[in-house]
Amino acid sequence: MVKKLSEKIIQTGAPIVVGLDPMMKYIPEHIQKAAFAEHGETLKGAAEAIWQFNKEIVDHVYDLIPAVKPQIAMYEQFGVEGLIAYQKTVDYCQEKGLVVIGDIKRGDIGSTSEAYAIGHLGKVQVGSKKLEAFHEDIVTVNPYLGSDGVDPFVKVCKEENKGIFILVKTSNPSSGEFQDRLIDGKPLYEWVGEKVNEWGSDCMDGEYSNVGAVVGATYPEMGKVLRKLMSKAYILVPGYGAQGGKGKDLVHFFNEDGLGAIVNSSRGIIAAYAQEQYAKFGAEHFGEASRQAVLDMKEDIGSALQNR
Amino acid sequence: MVKKLSEKIIQTGAPIVVGLDPMMKYIPEHIQKAAFAEHGETLKGAAEAIWQFNKEIVDHVYDLIPAVKPQIAMYEQFGVEGLIAYQKTVDYCQEKGLVVIGDIKRGDIGSTSEAYAIGHLGKVQVGSKKLEAFHEDIVTVNPYLGSDGVDPFVKVCKEENKGIFILVKTSNPSSGEFQDRLIDGKPLYEWVGEKVNEWGSDCMDGEYSNVGAVVGATYPEMGKVLRKLMSKAYILVPGYGAQGGKGKDLVHFFNEDGLGAIVNSSRGIIAAYAQEQYAKFGAEHFGEASRQAVLDMKEDIGSALQNR
Repeated sequence: MVKKLSEKIIQTGAPIVVGLDPMMKYIPEHIQKAAFAEHGETLKGAAEAIWQFNKEIVDHVYDLIPAVKPQIAMYEQFGVEGLIAYQKTVDYCQEKGLVVIGDIKRGDIGSTSEAYAIGHLGKVQVGSKKLEAFHEDIVTVNPYLGSDGVDPFVKVCKEENKGIFILVKTSNPSSGEFQDRLIDGKPLYEWVGEKVNEWGSDCMDGEYSNVGAVVGATYPEMGKVLRKLMSKAYILVPGYGAQGGKGKDLVHFFNEDGLGAIVNSSRGIIAAYAQEQYAKFGAEHFGEASRQAVLDMKEDIGSALQNR
Repeated sequence: MVKKLSEKIIQTGAPIVVGLDPMMKYIPEHIQKAAFAEHGETLKGAAEAIWQFNKEIVDHVYDLIPAVKPQIAMYEQFGVEGLIAYQKTVDYCQEKGLVVIGDIKRGDIGSTSEAYAIGHLGKVQVGSKKLEAFHEDIVTVNPYLGSDGVDPFVKVCKEENKGIFILVKTSNPSSGEFQDRLIDGKPLYEWVGEKVNEWGSDCMDGEYSNVGAVVGATYPEMGKVLRKLMSKAYILVPGYGAQGGKGKDLVHFFNEDGLGAIVNSSRGIIAAYAQEQYAKFGAEHFGEASRQAVLDMKEDIGSALQNR
């Protein structure tokens, strides 16, 4: 799967993933009104608003980007109805040829991680049949439980040619509370990074491994160290834009081949219409504002990489 | 919420939570056949089998125990249909007066954890309304992202009188890979335990805090240390029975008042009918086997506590 991702990055010239994190406050009023008129102010109404919002954004950006990253929490908060919208979003993006990275951050003891792995990346046995459930292409995984919590995901990656990104150093302000603590002189995130290499060593797909890592754009110096440490891992880089990361902070997340990283932006793209810079498009044309924001992000990262 | 849990433990005399982790292989054939006859070998058929299985177990044990712990992964693996069965299980157990601990192990950056917190414990804003989605009473939370990933859960606990159990030391064999590593002379799980105290200090509900901890039965010596360290935290103790923990290993997880811990058993209870010890009940009467297994577990833990 990472080979497909990498090829799509080369083809689009955009190491960019659009985070489909449709918080209600980002969804223009006309979309909300139409959904509530049909379904009332219900969980189903909210799910319909999310879905219509996502669809219009995807229709405006799918030809520019290799991948999307729906954040499942933003759907799960609306219960089962929200997860139906998540599923529709995954299906629709795959129909459009996009690699779908489910930002699910799951991770549990072995037998439980296995259930997550088959439910999101593999096939679940039902009687005599093997069926797909959420079927994202790649998911994010939390490493706190250690190898036996990660191994079932790696197994499914091998069997089904899917991918995972392990949380190594997250983009949030307090990520350092545990992740930065020194163990035998090295921060925990480096120990996790070494495990990413180990988990991914038997899982190569072209030049890179199907086991990648999450490292926040907000910590560029640590990104530089982790880039070298995990040379065969694709790095998913959240925290660009709204969380504070900028193109020039990102160059060290990439390998010399200009590959090996994909930068996420969520509200910077999907709520672009609400920013001064893109206000001219108006809320009615939020999809066009998102398209322009993707083009600008591509330019920002592209020029930073050229001037590295 | 932890006060309600504690009172129910006193009332039932059973510091026991039944893990509703309905893997298909545990579900007797007659239940599977009936579900597949109605819905085919589909995700919906699997979900129906899970729901019927759960209902019969709950009907046979609800008067003996304070709480259940559905493991959401075992539902999520069947996609949206599985999560409908999860929701029905949560609803049904609450109708029966049980405290429902959703074993969801979520955790993310602040704004995303907020979505998980309101979707599972609080209320989500939809237009002018505030609506409940999954509405468990307590959920498990992964601490890897640090305070800003946990704070939104704590906030909702305060507002809605709900609870969380933070993963401190998990029951699986490789939990030590990161959790046991020494940081300034203390293992990571103790640092997390100290944070549990900090997060929970402002969140008391009677003698205990609504912020509790997960510590595996499989590590009794660490349980002893963590019990003392987190004196105001209820400890959810997985790993009893099938994972290897026994009553006598568990006494140090409890405070001197005989409270402060609740021990989970999943397959030991729900798949009791498949064990030699309970084979006499037969697969048709799996609910009765589960009831007997709960009574035996209560006896095992009760006598261990008496002889401590």
